[in-house]
Amino acid sequence: MRLLSVVLSGGAGSRLWPASRQAFPKPFMKLGDSTLLQQAIERGQACGTGDLLVVTNKDHLFLTKDVLAQMVDPPEATLLLEPKGRNTGPAIALAALQCARQFGGDTVMLVLSADHLVPDVEAFVASASQAFRLAEQGALVVFGVSPTSPDTGFGYIEVEHVSRESQRATRFVEKPDLETAQEYLATGRYYWNSGMFCFTADAILSAFERHAPQLLTAARRALESSQVVGQTVQFELHAFGLQPDISIDYAVMERADNVHVVPAKFGWSDVGSWPSVAKAQTPDASGNTMPPDVVAIDTTGTHVQVSSHSPKVVATLGVHDLVIVDTPDALLVAHKDSAQSVKSVVDILKARRHETVHLPAVVHRPWGTYASLKEEDGYKVKRITVKAGASLSLQYHHQRAEHWVVVRGSALVQVGDVEHQTHPGEYRYIPLKEKHRLTNIGEDELVLIEVQCGAYLGEDDIVRLADTYGRV
Amino acid sequence: MRLLSVVLSGGAGSRLWPASRQAFPKPFMKLGDSTLLQQAIERGQACGTGDLLVVTNKDHLFLTKDVLAQMVDPPEATLLLEPKGRNTGPAIALAALQCARQFGGDTVMLVLSADHLVPDVEAFVASASQAFRLAEQGALVVFGVSPTSPDTGFGYIEVEHVSRESQRATRFVEKPDLETAQEYLATGRYYWNSGMFCFTADAILSAFERHAPQLLTAARRALESSQVVGQTVQFELHAFGLQPDISIDYAVMERADNVHVVPAKFGWSDVGSWPSVAKAQTPDASGNTMPPDVVAIDTTGTHVQVSSHSPKVVATLGVHDLVIVDTPDALLVAHKDSAQSVKSVVDILKARRHETVHLPAVVHRPWGTYASLKEEDGYKVKRITVKAGASLSLQYHHQRAEHWVVVRGSALVQVGDVEHQTHPGEYRYIPLKEKHRLTNIGEDELVLIEVQCGAYLGEDDIVRLADTYGRV
Repeated sequence: MRLLSVVLSGGAGSRLWPASRQAFPKPFMKLGDSTLLQQAIERGQACGTGDLLVVTNKDHLFLTKDVLAQMVDPPEATLLLEPKGRNTGPAIALAALQCARQFGGDTVMLVLSADHLVPDVEAFVASASQAFRLAEQGALVVFGVSPTSPDTGFGYIEVEHVSRESQRATRFVEKPDLETAQEYLATGRYYWNSGMFCFTADAILSAFERHAPQLLTAARRALESSQVVGQTVQFELHAFGLQPDISIDYAVMERADNVHVVPAKFGWSDVGSWPSVAKAQTPDASGNTMPPDVVAIDTTGTHVQVSSHSPKVVATLGVHDLVIVDTPDALLVAHKDSAQSVKSVVDILKARRHETVHLPAVVHRPWGTYASLKEEDGYKVKRITVKAGASLSLQYHHQRAEHWVVVRGSALVQVGDVEHQTHPGEYRYIPLKEKHRLTNIGEDELVLIEVQCGAYLGEDDIVRLADTYGRV
Repeated sequence: MRLLSVVLSGGAGSRLWPASRQAFPKPFMKLGDSTLLQQAIERGQACGTGDLLVVTNKDHLFLTKDVLAQMVDPPEATLLLEPKGRNTGPAIALAALQCARQFGGDTVMLVLSADHLVPDVEAFVASASQAFRLAEQGALVVFGVSPTSPDTGFGYIEVEHVSRESQRATRFVEKPDLETAQEYLATGRYYWNSGMFCFTADAILSAFERHAPQLLTAARRALESSQVVGQTVQFELHAFGLQPDISIDYAVMERADNVHVVPAKFGWSDVGSWPSVAKAQTPDASGNTMPPDVVAIDTTGTHVQVSSHSPKVVATLGVHDLVIVDTPDALLVAHKDSAQSVKSVVDILKARRHETVHLPAVVHRPWGTYASLKEEDGYKVKRITVKAGASLSLQYHHQRAEHWVVVRGSALVQVGDVEHQTHPGEYRYIPLKEKHRLTNIGEDELVLIEVQCGAYLGEDDIVRLADTYGRV
């Protein structure tokens, strides 16, 4: 049996603002020691899958590559790069088509979401084995989670009776209202739909053929007009956009008659809100989930999270059931009962065109990262990191000069036509309008402090003359 | 009638952590447009006082001078610099002795606290006029505030009946317990002791002579052994320490028979806690006191304060009656009912030897300020400001080299024996162990970005060769 992990890595994650941003969504958030995306990939590996398909937005290519590069034992990965979001129906259809042509139609696809948390990987492996056996026999498997509350944030799956054994699904229902969810819970016949699936490429493709033939045709065309560049499949915007925006549940699962539910015998969270992030951590005796150096007096049930980029002491006094998330450019203080409304905050900030909606405080680029340390009239101070072997574009600026001090690693600094090896503690000056380039020639990360001076310091004052990443 | 303002500028202000710190206490906090100290000085000026005596800790000399320098119309000031805290008894005795010798014994002293908030200056002036008339006739005047709650944080003054007229005080009592405070409130015979006084130097000195002769003798000796340097009076530690640590209330007011209460017809706050800071501001329709750019959803009665040194967006969701104070290095989230316990936070941080207890994020020096923008192994980035005409010491470092970029103003940078004029956008390098000095030769503030590189970056790696401020 050939096993393939398919990781769906999408979503804006606005409910986890300010830790997640449009340009830095949930899969890239660290929870525990690693990002949620890495945890999903490792979960697949633990189940014995060899290769990996990741379906993600093209804007997140470099973030995704970073995650893979940081893994000790990364799988062979193919990245399907969506030019825009088109829901899980097209994503899974494209993954199945790609799987069939790359690995064969009898390959078993384990479809995982990149923004779930599954603390007990062993229990997950046991459920997955059950799913693999059913998938091999041609079933479409969905992992169902026994509901513990009438949650209105999930789809529900009806069965004969919730049990510890797998069984045929009788009905899929979309996110219900509270009253309906309460009824479902009372009957004992419903699972939460986890959004994790398992099937052979052939089985899901014939289900598409039968229940969503137009979608499948559109997906085939999108794949036919796509470009394979290295390990990526890049779709053409128009052909991609012709696919309907529809979930796999609506397109296939609701209609197919060979859908089986494998009950999740593992703890699971879709990390859909700050309270669920808190729940996924082990609380202290007062029910708090917070770094050990927080000074918490008369504080219960409170979650505190501080960005590692701006370490600071946090004190809480006489507060209960709060969520406190501090980042260098944004602070959220919310009651856990209101945490679903974080999206409203993001909507308000969007209307104000506030950049904390889009950009994280530490901005990721293909070559590394940058973060603003201070900005005032006439100057800006940045901390820039460059990955080993990476290089910024050859560029110049119309309105600013730059002072560079290397503080870690080894750089090759090109100024005009001259190249200078530059080591920690050494300085280079980049005059106005002079072409320049920064390359990491060491084996470790390069860290540089940049002081920009000029009348205009926007990111758009950049003329790229050459670029490794095709951004000229 | 000669009128003198005496401003008592002391106190640790730990109840307003993290905005106030040991090295940056309450009088130097900005509330509204200016610092509390400046507001106290201007309050005195509004009452027609000419000269000014400030009694403060010697560590706060430069902060105090900064406040005076930033005033449009600063009074002639003499600064009595205490080598350590010794309560209001000695402070007022020393001020009275200094007043008598500098301006004459019949001078009327208006004794103000540097950490009070009095929004209605006109009403204050009216009360002060009443006090001046009584003081001229030899009375010891205390300003009494009509209590609005059984507050246990104030001393109380008993009179025949609380009224709008001044009258003789019959008894002073220290901070009572809650039950006693409730009784006081019920009788209608008690004022809160505001800690503001008015008397001639002669009147208070003869009251000391009669009720606290040992204190007066010790104060005389402390003044005799003091050094007058410019506009400062610097006390010798031993002689100063021989004064008893006692309040003016205990030492004199409780015992004297010519104490009059002038009722405060003005709004008054001792700004003793975050809720009182909030109360001093005009709330919005939801009872919130916060900057206009805070995103507040389902939020009431909440006070938000963000340091101007690290502007960020703050969002509050479903929270009520909180105090949220964010600074670059510390964040406090407290319920207003618990805000008195901020001192407990400070105590815990003291035990951890945490520097946010002592140092503010922006550190004030006689020549200007510095703030750390980023610190990691091997390097530190600082933003340094230098006042017009000011100069750092001529110094060198054993373990670090420094990169300087001037971003605002004009500097004279001495490196070794060479001096370089350095303008915005220009750079200077200070090698390891090389003597150097930074001087602001412009008329505006100088701003410099410094990148320190070295194995050890502590503030104590400094060898001063010459210093304008006597710190060699």
